[in-house]
This record gives sequence, structure tokens and C-alpha cells, in this order.
Amino acid sequence: MADTRHITLPKGFRATGVKAGIKPSGREDVALLAAEADCSAAVVLTSNQVFGAPIAWARRILPRGRGKLRAFVINSGCSNVCTGPAGLRDAEEMAARTARRLVCDARKVLVASTGVIGHRLPMDKVRAGIDAAAEKLSTRHDGDFLRAIMTTDLREKSAVVVSKLGRTKFTVAGTVKGSGMIAPSLATMIAPITTDAAVSPALLHKALKDVAGRTFNAVTVDSDQSTSDTVAVLASGASGNASIRPGSKEYRKFLAVLEEVCGALAYQLAADGEGATRVIRIAVTGARGEADARAAAMSVANSPLVKTAVHGSDPNWGRIVMALGKSAAKVEPDKLKVRIGRTLVFSAGRGRKFDEKTVSTYLSGKEVDIACDLGLGEGAFAALTCDLSREYIAINADYTT
Amino acid sequence: MADTRHITLPKGFRATGVKAGIKPSGREDVALLAAEADCSAAVVLTSNQVFGAPIAWARRILPRGRGKLRAFVINSGCSNVCTGPAGLRDAEEMAARTARRLVCDARKVLVASTGVIGHRLPMDKVRAGIDAAAEKLSTRHDGDFLRAIMTTDLREKSAVVVSKLGRTKFTVAGTVKGSGMIAPSLATMIAPITTDAAVSPALLHKALKDVAGRTFNAVTVDSDQSTSDTVAVLASGASGNASIRPGSKEYRKFLAVLEEVCGALAYQLAADGEGATRVIRIAVTGARGEADARAAAMSVANSPLVKTAVHGSDPNWGRIVMALGKSAAKVEPDKLKVRIGRTLVFSAGRGRKFDEKTVSTYLSGKEVDIACDLGLGEGAFAALTCDLSREYIAINADYTT
Repeated sequence: MADTRHITLPKGFRATGVKAGIKPSGREDVALLAAEADCSAAVVLTSNQVFGAPIAWARRILPRGRGKLRAFVINSGCSNVCTGPAGLRDAEEMAARTARRLVCDARKVLVASTGVIGHRLPMDKVRAGIDAAAEKLSTRHDGDFLRAIMTTDLREKSAVVVSKLGRTKFTVAGTVKGSGMIAPSLATMIAPITTDAAVSPALLHKALKDVAGRTFNAVTVDSDQSTSDTVAVLASGASGNASIRPGSKEYRKFLAVLEEVCGALAYQLAADGEGATRVIRIAVTGARGEADARAAAMSVANSPLVKTAVHGSDPNWGRIVMALGKSAAKVEPDKLKVRIGRTLVFSAGRGRKFDEKTVSTYLSGKEVDIACDLGLGEGAFAALTCDLSREYIAINADYTT
Repeated sequence: MADTRHITLPKGFRATGVKAGIKPSGREDVALLAAEADCSAAVVLTSNQVFGAPIAWARRILPRGRGKLRAFVINSGCSNVCTGPAGLRDAEEMAARTARRLVCDARKVLVASTGVIGHRLPMDKVRAGIDAAAEKLSTRHDGDFLRAIMTTDLREKSAVVVSKLGRTKFTVAGTVKGSGMIAPSLATMIAPITTDAAVSPALLHKALKDVAGRTFNAVTVDSDQSTSDTVAVLASGASGNASIRPGSKEYRKFLAVLEEVCGALAYQLAADGEGATRVIRIAVTGARGEADARAAAMSVANSPLVKTAVHGSDPNWGRIVMALGKSAAKVEPDKLKVRIGRTLVFSAGRGRKFDEKTVSTYLSGKEVDIACDLGLGEGAFAALTCDLSREYIAINADYTT
């Protein structure tokens, strides 16, 4: 079966993934994305105070989260976090070796590593992997690229949107890995995104930050936050559009397309959450402001009792109301309305009569919508999560050993 | 087998529990604690914005968390939360009916209810239960009292300490129910505590608030916070000591004994956490202040990845460091030291070499100590939690239905 193309669909990119022997499973573990020329680039990185060497490298080469990049090299199987000055030298060497192969400045090469925390990279294998990947770069290995960034992921996650800026066709394509340690701000998530639109680094960064808040940063699998999160957009400009200007119609179009891609990737992250059998969308409206809406939605999305109730198809709205009530958001039970799917289950301070069987059947579906109208203002935010199952425990009770 | 005595060991109290038919299991579900005369009383209640009718009643009769009480009536099987004005009338009627039986003012009767949210109490059964309990009050039914407040609890949790104030012997005894929806501030927890020490309501409240912060509010099972949490101390004064004065040697002695009882109950809550197989104590020292220490300890205690790693006896210190790093507390990896048991696993920004088998064996024990020295100041706080197992999911995926 031929692999689906995605990350190299925008013009000007090649990619591949190789088996370097870092993962005990023997699967692909070194991924390389390379542009034919320098690209506008923007990144958002983990805000965890403990962060990996690749994050330190990214902050050095893109000090304000933006600049020019030529390539993005990623390994899975080892996260290069808590590895001291030697770990930072390893990350630098990954960039330098990639740069030598592609004949560019090492400071144009972004690095990411994902996997267990606290082990040095097996640099012999990494070096050989980078060399092999540089040889194999192509527009026919998108599947290998994607598999090489995956860890506990069960599904390959990607999204592509083709649109137009004026008469010029452009494409935004994204991939993402991550299924545990997923919570804002950012997840154990590495999301390489490409586009052939022409856009400056500064404007690309503004767009990415805007979109990430509503997409990647609205997903939580387990409330834990990784030390290695990296979302990076590379814009080659090869589509030939006139460079997008701030505040223009073209910017709004580009923003919408980027949001569609990031939103699709975020949805796939929730759907592939460790042990997940359902995607749960918690839409809060009527909050005093957006910060309240986010706090309320995230409190429900992170509640193990809500997540286990959904797993059990149990219309236990009391747990939803509990999670809203414990949040930092202002909540007045008398003004609150809660719907599960289309069914109003709570209003005016108490539970409504409803057909439990209907709601239980609804909760057995693959997608569950929980809508909470706080009735206090205009603030709105939607969070995405998944149910909490025995499988989450099984996956996480013995990951390193 | 004779039941252990606890809640009626301090002089001046009687108690019992009866089967009123509220719980589908048919087990004891109405508990009554009565004092022979009015007691000094102090309560701490849930801070959830959504709270049950009994909480509203408690705030009305003890507006500053303290006052005089004669009795404490509790039902399990139904929480009387989100039941509107009718639910509040039900709580009032529970107090009034108990008061009529004991010949006292209804405003001297504290009420608590625990169980599923959103259902009206079956008042016919509750009334009959209160009448039967009032008939049966004794110092030989402490076990029935305790079983009547339990829901998903597997173990009966109680603690007794006998000490002296000057030459006068006094006793503090406590019981507690709760094993899920357990997190600060307060747990799904109902903790009736008695003492025969003589102490004013104001001083008793000061002592309880002080102690609760380090005991009940340091326990988290699942980060969820109940709508019904109630800790109540009733002090009969029947031991005959001179009333304890603020700041005195006797106050410090009383505080220490109260803390010993509350600490033992908090430990038992963690040990009986839903699905728990281990108690985990996270001691943070060296934080910039106590607020930072609490934030750091609670972040580790609430991390599902840490809790599953302990469940799997996996010495995955990376997850501990991740949870510290994502917390609101200031953390500098280079100054951080982490110990699992006696083994130093992390310092100077990276993992130490240690014998993984030794630490894994240690993690298989019933008690796990994780010590994190942030190296930044004098702030210290210890949190208690339990591991996260498949059983937690099994218990919570179908609780109402």
C-alpha cells in the first residue's frame, strides 16, 4: 500500500525516516525534513521549566520563536532531557551533522528528540541515521518520516489543506506525534508543519501563536506537560504568492487554513490519547471572559471522574458540575446549563429529567460533546480530551523498563 | 468480632448507624453522633462553588465555621447536591427531626450527605432511619456509625489518641469516609472528630484550620474536589480540663494531638484511595516559600504519569522532574535533588547512576517516599497520594448506573 503524502505536498520540501536502531522495537527513529532553500520559520515550545537540550538549542537559534530554517531533524526513542552539558553538545552535533550533509549553516537546523527522559543519545546510531536520512530525502517517504517521530502513538496523524491566496494555490500540511503527557501549554507533542505560502517569520509566528492557543493548547490527555514539546512551521514561499501582509485578507485566509490544519492535528492527538476510546469536546460559553472559559473547560477536560464516567457511558452530570465548580472560573449553579450531546441535563441549579438510556447510548459513540453555558458573560473556549481507560494505566505503568 | 471503639471514646458522646434502605446494597446508611450536652464545634467545608444542601445548612448554623453543636447526622447513598430549594428543605428536616428526638434546637444539628449527585433524598427512609438511630444511640455501635458514612471505601478509617493536659487525661478520636473525588481543598470526605477536651469554639476552629492544611488538605487521590466535604470537630469538655487558652502550652499540646489524629486519618484516606495499592508521600523542601512547596508537591501528587509509574514499580524519575517543572513553583533543574526512598536519582540537572532493581523493589512496597529538594529556600510541604491503577477506572467507569 502506498503511503499517503502530506508533509512534502507543499512545494519545496523533502523528507524521510530511517531505522537507526535507537528504538528497541527496531522501527523508524530518525526523521529528516529538509527545504530546498531557507524558509520562514516559527516555533512554539514547551513552557515546562525542565526542558530538553533540543529546546535549549531551538531557543538559541530562534530566540524570539522565529527566523529562518532549512531543516528539521528529529529522533524518537530517547528525549535528550536532563542530560546536562553533554546532552546539549549532542543536540548541537545533530544540527551540525545535518547541516554538513545539506550544505547549510548549523543554526538553520531545528532539532527535536522524543522518548524516555534522562538518557544520553546513542550518538553513533544518531550520526549514522542522519547520514542515511540525508541520502534518502525524497517526496515519496512521508510515511517513513511520520513513523520515525512516533513513540506510543497508535495512529499516524497528519492533515493537509489546499487553498488559494488570490489566484495562487497554496498548501499547508502538518504531522504530529504524541499521545501521553499531553496538556497545555503544549503536549508531549512534536508537530512539524510545512507550507509553500510566502510569509515573513514575524507574521508566521504571530499566526502560529494565535492558532496554537485554540488548537494544540486546547488538548489535554492526562494534564501532564512534556519537557520537549515543539510545534514548528516552515514556510518555503515556493507557491509564488506575494508575501502575505499583516492584517490583510490574505493573512486571514492563511490563518484560517493554518487553524484548520492545526485543529485537525489536535483532534487526532485527542483521538489517539493513550488508551482513548472516545474524543470528548468540552465547549464552555457564557463565561465572564476567555480566561474563565478556558479554566472551566480545562477543569472538566482534566477531571479523571468525568473521563472515567464517559468511558463507562454513564450520564453522571454531577461530576461535570463538580469539575466546573472547583475551577478558577466563576460559576453560579443557578445560571448554569449543561448539555450532553443535545440533551439538557442540568439547569437552574439542578438536574433535569431526561432519558438516561438515550444519553448513555450517545456517550458510547466515538465523539462526545459536552456543552456548558455558564450564563455569566461572553467568554467561550473549547477543550478537547479523551476518556480515561484501563489501557492508559497499562501503557504508563511500565514504559521505561 | 467486637467492633473497635473510637468516636465515642472521648467522654460525653454516643453514636450509632442503621440500615435505612437508602443504599442499594442494603448496608448501614444513616449515622448519628450525639453529645450529652452542647459542644464547642468547628468545621471546615468544601470550597467548591457547587455545593450540597447540607453545606448550605452548615454555613447557616455555623456562619464563621464555629459555634455550638449537639449532634451530627449523616446519610450515605445520596449526596443531596444540585437538588434546589427542595433539597435544602430536606437537609433542614434532617436537622429538625434529629433535634426533636434529642430535645435540642435544630440549629445545633450538623447534617452531611454523601453519594451520587443530583437526586432527592428518599425522605421517608431518612426519617425512619433518624428515628431508629436515635433509639439505638450508645457507646457500643462505633462500627455501625462508621460503616453508615462509607460509600466506595474499602476500609474502615479511624484514629484515636489519648494524652494529658496537665494532669487531666483527654482523648481525640476521628473517623473519615472517602476514597475518590479526593483533592484539596478537601476531599469527598466526611470526617467526624470528637474530643472531651474543653476548648472554646473560636480556638477549636483556629486549631482545626491550622491542622487541616497539613493533613486533609495535603491528600489527593484524583485531583477532583467534592461538593460535600465536611470535617467537624465536636469538643464536649467532659474530660474536666480547664478551658484551653490561646497560645498556651496546653494549646500546643492539643494542636499536636489533633494533628496526630487528622494526619492518621489523611494517611488512611490515601491508602484507601480508589484502586490504591501504595501510599505515596511527596516531601518537597528547599522551595522559595510554603506556597511554592505546596504547588510543587501537589503537581507531583496529581500527575497521572508519576502515579502510574509507581504502580508499575518503574523508577522513572523523569516524570517526577517533569511534574515539578510544570508546576507554578520556581524550579531550577541544576539545583534540584530528587530521592526515591534513600536513593538519590537526580541532581545537578541530570539523572544519577543508581541500581534500578533496588529502586524498583523499593517502589513495590506499600509505602513510597519521594523527596524533592528544590535548593532555593526554606519552604517545605508534604503531600500524600496513592498510585493509579486499573481498579480506579473500574470503580469510576460505572458508579451511578
